[in-house]
Amino acid sequence: MAEALVRQRTRDLVRAIGVKDLDSVMSFYAPNLVSFDLDPPLRYTGTERKRQAWQALFAAHPGPFSYEVGELGVTADGELAFVHGLNHVKGTLPGGHPTDLWVRWTACFRRIDGVWLVVHDHVSVPADLEHEKAVLNLAP
Amino acid sequence: MAEALVRQRTRDLVRAIGVKDLDSVMSFYAPNLVSFDLDPPLRYTGTERKRQAWQALFAAHPGPFSYEVGELGVTADGELAFVHGLNHVKGTLPGGHPTDLWVRWTACFRRIDGVWLVVHDHVSVPADLEHEKAVLNLAP
Repeated sequence: MAEALVRQRTRDLVRAIGVKDLDSVMSFYAPNLVSFDLDPPLRYTGTERKRQAWQALFAAHPGPFSYEVGELGVTADGELAFVHGLNHVKGTLPGGHPTDLWVRWTACFRRIDGVWLVVHDHVSVPADLEHEKAVLNLAP
Repeated sequence: MAEALVRQRTRDLVRAIGVKDLDSVMSFYAPNLVSFDLDPPLRYTGTERKRQAWQALFAAHPGPFSYEVGELGVTADGELAFVHGLNHVKGTLPGGHPTDLWVRWTACFRRIDGVWLVVHDHVSVPADLEHEKAVLNLAP
């Protein structure tokens, strides 16, 4: 029951991202969010910076854009849930350069006043420590 | 109550890593673990590769080594919990080169037969997408 709700909630969040609906996207985050995001810094708290991050991504892809979650795993019990997936970001930058990137995504939800909200998320690509490279060419 | 247990469990895991006790470390993971680890691949399942990853890290630091968790956040309810922290890995590689790295760490626990086990984890450093760099010089 909770699992089905969180799965639907996750699909709704991903759909909102795909249509670049910033206000809808932001409605999924708790005010005290702790985020380990794709870009620096190591972590930030609160939703202001998350809004800026999504806004920047949407602005960088004024044309066709898609955001899809693959291999979605959902676990829920009581007031908590966590989901993980491999998310596929596709689009075209203003200069014509394509974005085509798979990122790992973990989101931890808490039911707050009856609404499932993301209180923590973690988004990344693997690192090649020896060469200090972000490994961007992986696909599931 | 669950939160205190998971916090203690997390401290025990981190302590086991710090003393390079591979069998103890592995006892914290569920057999069906889904891991988004620091290195490629994007994700793996099961504990065999996790064991290899810890074994490789320990082998690369035969001498002094420390592993500490900072800014630990613990959330627990029912049969689920998640923790996040900024983990500080320090040591010396065989050639004398120092390791001194902060990583973001998210671990999702499930109570299975009364024991809190990690069923999903996510470890990363931020990425500088434009330059395809792993950003390794950040500290909290």
